[in-house]
Amino acid sequence: MFKEYDVIVVGAGHAGCEAAAAAANLGSSVLLITMNMETIAQMSCNPAMGGVAKGQIVREIDAMGGYSGIIADKTTLQFRMLNLSKGPAMWSPRAQNDRKRFAEEWRFALEATPNVDFWQEMVGSLIVKNNTIIGVKTALGVEIKAKSVVLTNGTFLNGLIHIGEKRFGGGRTGEKAATGLTEQLTSLGFDAGRMKTGTPPRIDGRSLDYTKMEEQWGDENPGRFSYTNVERPVEQRCCWITYTNNDVHETLKEGFEKSPMFTGRIKGLGPRYCPSIEDKINRFAERDRHQIFVEPEGWNTCEIYVNGFSTSLPEDIQYKALRKIPGFENAKMFRPGYAIEYDYFPPTQLSLTLETKLISNLFFAGQINGTTGYEEAASQGFIAGINAHLKINEQHELIMKRSESYIGVLIDDLVTKGTEEPYRMFTSRAEHRLLLRQDNADIRLSPIAHKLGLIDDERLAIVNRKVENADAIVNFTKKQGIDMSSANDLLASLGTATLNQNVKLFNVLSRPQVGIEDIRKVSRPFNDLLNTFDKETIEQAEIKIKYESYFEKENEIVNKMQKMEDKSINPDFDYTKLLSLSKEAREKLLKIKPRTLGQASRISGVSPSDISVLMVHITK
Amino acid sequence: MFKEYDVIVVGAGHAGCEAAAAAANLGSSVLLITMNMETIAQMSCNPAMGGVAKGQIVREIDAMGGYSGIIADKTTLQFRMLNLSKGPAMWSPRAQNDRKRFAEEWRFALEATPNVDFWQEMVGSLIVKNNTIIGVKTALGVEIKAKSVVLTNGTFLNGLIHIGEKRFGGGRTGEKAATGLTEQLTSLGFDAGRMKTGTPPRIDGRSLDYTKMEEQWGDENPGRFSYTNVERPVEQRCCWITYTNNDVHETLKEGFEKSPMFTGRIKGLGPRYCPSIEDKINRFAERDRHQIFVEPEGWNTCEIYVNGFSTSLPEDIQYKALRKIPGFENAKMFRPGYAIEYDYFPPTQLSLTLETKLISNLFFAGQINGTTGYEEAASQGFIAGINAHLKINEQHELIMKRSESYIGVLIDDLVTKGTEEPYRMFTSRAEHRLLLRQDNADIRLSPIAHKLGLIDDERLAIVNRKVENADAIVNFTKKQGIDMSSANDLLASLGTATLNQNVKLFNVLSRPQVGIEDIRKVSRPFNDLLNTFDKETIEQAEIKIKYESYFEKENEIVNKMQKMEDKSINPDFDYTKLLSLSKEAREKLLKIKPRTLGQASRISGVSPSDISVLMVHITK
Repeated sequence: MFKEYDVIVVGAGHAGCEAAAAAANLGSSVLLITMNMETIAQMSCNPAMGGVAKGQIVREIDAMGGYSGIIADKTTLQFRMLNLSKGPAMWSPRAQNDRKRFAEEWRFALEATPNVDFWQEMVGSLIVKNNTIIGVKTALGVEIKAKSVVLTNGTFLNGLIHIGEKRFGGGRTGEKAATGLTEQLTSLGFDAGRMKTGTPPRIDGRSLDYTKMEEQWGDENPGRFSYTNVERPVEQRCCWITYTNNDVHETLKEGFEKSPMFTGRIKGLGPRYCPSIEDKINRFAERDRHQIFVEPEGWNTCEIYVNGFSTSLPEDIQYKALRKIPGFENAKMFRPGYAIEYDYFPPTQLSLTLETKLISNLFFAGQINGTTGYEEAASQGFIAGINAHLKINEQHELIMKRSESYIGVLIDDLVTKGTEEPYRMFTSRAEHRLLLRQDNADIRLSPIAHKLGLIDDERLAIVNRKVENADAIVNFTKKQGIDMSSANDLLASLGTATLNQNVKLFNVLSRPQVGIEDIRKVSRPFNDLLNTFDKETIEQAEIKIKYESYFEKENEIVNKMQKMEDKSINPDFDYTKLLSLSKEAREKLLKIKPRTLGQASRISGVSPSDISVLMVHITK
Repeated sequence: MFKEYDVIVVGAGHAGCEAAAAAANLGSSVLLITMNMETIAQMSCNPAMGGVAKGQIVREIDAMGGYSGIIADKTTLQFRMLNLSKGPAMWSPRAQNDRKRFAEEWRFALEATPNVDFWQEMVGSLIVKNNTIIGVKTALGVEIKAKSVVLTNGTFLNGLIHIGEKRFGGGRTGEKAATGLTEQLTSLGFDAGRMKTGTPPRIDGRSLDYTKMEEQWGDENPGRFSYTNVERPVEQRCCWITYTNNDVHETLKEGFEKSPMFTGRIKGLGPRYCPSIEDKINRFAERDRHQIFVEPEGWNTCEIYVNGFSTSLPEDIQYKALRKIPGFENAKMFRPGYAIEYDYFPPTQLSLTLETKLISNLFFAGQINGTTGYEEAASQGFIAGINAHLKINEQHELIMKRSESYIGVLIDDLVTKGTEEPYRMFTSRAEHRLLLRQDNADIRLSPIAHKLGLIDDERLAIVNRKVENADAIVNFTKKQGIDMSSANDLLASLGTATLNQNVKLFNVLSRPQVGIEDIRKVSRPFNDLLNTFDKETIEQAEIKIKYESYFEKENEIVNKMQKMEDKSINPDFDYTKLLSLSKEAREKLLKIKPRTLGQASRISGVSPSDISVLMVHITK
């Protein structure tokens, strides 16, 4: 009934969609199998993309030719660059999105990808021969052959939804769970675990009193995720901020004895940094309020997402507590919040390409690997899709470096350290975060994407031009002087020391108080130069001027570390004979099978002395 | 947790949405409960509204202030007035719709209805006290009180999906079935039955060869469903026609031994006039081809609906057979067609208000009553919603007459005769179909809707003005003469007899070959008059001129019959003592409890002599 596909992607969430698009754009024939074609790319939780570290990931996906940034831009209700008061490594783009439009745009984008076919059904099992995947079998019993398979099952594998003491099967509320795959994978030797996540109630925006909340508008000159010039909605929507209080907390506590979190009914661990409201008031008992973000779900709907109020308490407690939040006195719910438990597979069972170690040509991406977050999922799907294509075409694998991308940090962390609770990205997880900025994802990653064939010559040329132009600006500031007399008024007004002599532009621009937009006002030649460049190029130049010395130091560290990263280890290296290793190190190394000495050094339980031993033996 | 509502509507398909809107617009507080808020008003089968007799129903709903016509207009991909070559009683508006937009516009319309609240959950049982409904209980165990409840469960009650020999529970493919309600209702004394319906496979439009099909465009000057001036998309989309052939039929026959239709696995009866393709080639074995309409699912999606190819044969047979249809040689499926069995409640258990006879204030609408079709469902929901409101406010019930609307025919047929297979509307079901036209639904029904408060003074005034203006045109044609010499060339060219003397305009206009647009060209005064009126008014006048005598005769018949309809019968009338009735008549009358002698006369098994007996006793 079906031809043999190059790549089958199971699941059409953020991970599955990026996987399908990436493999297809590289030239693979792809079949995307979803349980419901109406819910492709559905945002299951908050209607938003990006945020701290996550926004950087979206920029990285976009720089490499993925779609998440484009889709997010097309459907943006409100855009904010977070952390602008901090250094540029912390700047993080974040957008509210229209939930329905986001899903729709993804579907259109996939339909516009000629190599992507679709099939609506549940995959019940995998077809494996000689430890290699060769296809899938659906619930109807249809066998579909493929050279590789990417599993992106999200929260659907044996999904179990909890609200208070009630629980029922489902992959999302109102949708069926997927069954069969976990059981087969464990019988094939995989370890499986349970994780938990949750979502807040949805509210009828017509029932809220916004006058009791703080307005939160987006940026006046909103940025974007995508480096492409995709058209975006001009109008923005307002969000609101309100707070819980002791009254809310006391009400919630009434439900604690029926909380599936606290009674032990939920076995899986939840995302530590995206806790439920009951978790927050339990863990931070000293805090008398928590922030609640009141976010619209779309352009035209009155549905409201109550960010910060994720809960699996009984629905009547949810209702009662909600109504004690300022502005929510008459709130009506559309549906209660809930927790969901689902199966995941500890990601130490994967190689850095996201291929499973046990079954060749089988890749995992997204929540099935124990992560949380749309962006984390999308980036894994993207890399898995690329590697699925490369593997079956016997091309060199794509392993993202920790020093060049958050995506590299994410995958290396997962594969090397594993995770026992839903893994979320933070800037603090990246040792080289100064280099992994949202402003330079294109500079960092376009060459890789271009080499793979995911972005065309023109896109690469644009990036190269941006680099050259920014350098030209920087060089200009190093040569062009500034007239003391015309600058001092400005410098004084900016609260920085005045000049005693004429200096180069670079000199004043490297001061933290002084911006490029300030100086162009007092330097006609500089202003003339800047007029020939776009905003992004100028921003890039300014970041270079202000932080170049830091970047240089960071790059030195990267280069030093790179020696460790470059020392590759044969995955079949026999650690059992290296008796000078600690027992724990031997066991862990055997399990993780690190590709490089650098990766080996990050395995918990592998000590510096173990690394020294290894270094001797692998260089032999 | 919830306040007590006036009306709870269970299910948010065509019936549920109209029910909720109607009751809310009359002033009731309404809670619309749906298993999934993302699928409100989802078109489960074909992405189209209207058609023969069905289009008239949509016009009737619209004339009375319902929303189906407005939503259909807003989302029209292509509009055609069917049967224009026949008399105006047969003219039937039909539109292709964007499936996603249709659902979305319904949701926005409901959100814009302040009295409508929403709750996403499955209703597990009804709360009944003293044979009166007082609320519902959800799967979570939430009890929600209400003065009345409208059940519009569609195909969800114990829904069972069949594809070949495989079957699985579900209300639609990819969605859960609803359980519990049937069992409770039967324990309360209701009879329940099983029905079956089906849907064709969905196809990847990118895989079709349209050059092998016939294009089918919409009308050049497309009409509309709604009498309001709702904005509509200007652009239209093309559909295509292709045909099955013997090769297709032979391939399908290969699957007959695994067909759930033929092997007896499906117990419920399917819609006779919307048969599956296997049913068609089985029942019409002499035909060597069947028409297939290839219909786009939306503005931007490549998904295609294969109208005419509904099937529950094994998916591989579906695929193989499809690919033998011209243009489908390389067709890729998104999902197979399937059949679905579901519970319904024979509608003779209802009164003409759609309230159940057993449980006060409980109303049924849509497929739960054994009907098929969006329009049939929507109209029942609309009437049930109105009557739910009227009942709890102790206002006079709304019973639609057979002589004034298809909706009246539909409900009277259901309640009086019941149905054992999915009931679909046809013009032939209406004895007064000459009067029940799509052009005059506003004239027929606006006064009723205005009296109820569903349309405002302005809308009624527009209708009254249309009638007055049309009459003015007709009267003008009866007075204004036409000059023989200027008309004869035209008449000859239209293939009708030339004049020997000057006559009134009415005289030539009443000829079937002569249109009002023809005559205005040769009569300056007539043209001047028409220039002051809109298209609809002129059309109304033309219909009057051409068919007035027929309408008058039909009205006479209606008036005669009306005497029977006006003879009301006490619902508690004790037929058991009327031994002069036939036994069958006694039983049927007891069961149906007709409201009028007219209704009694339409009960199968009640003979004219039974009616004579009744007439004597009820007039006593």
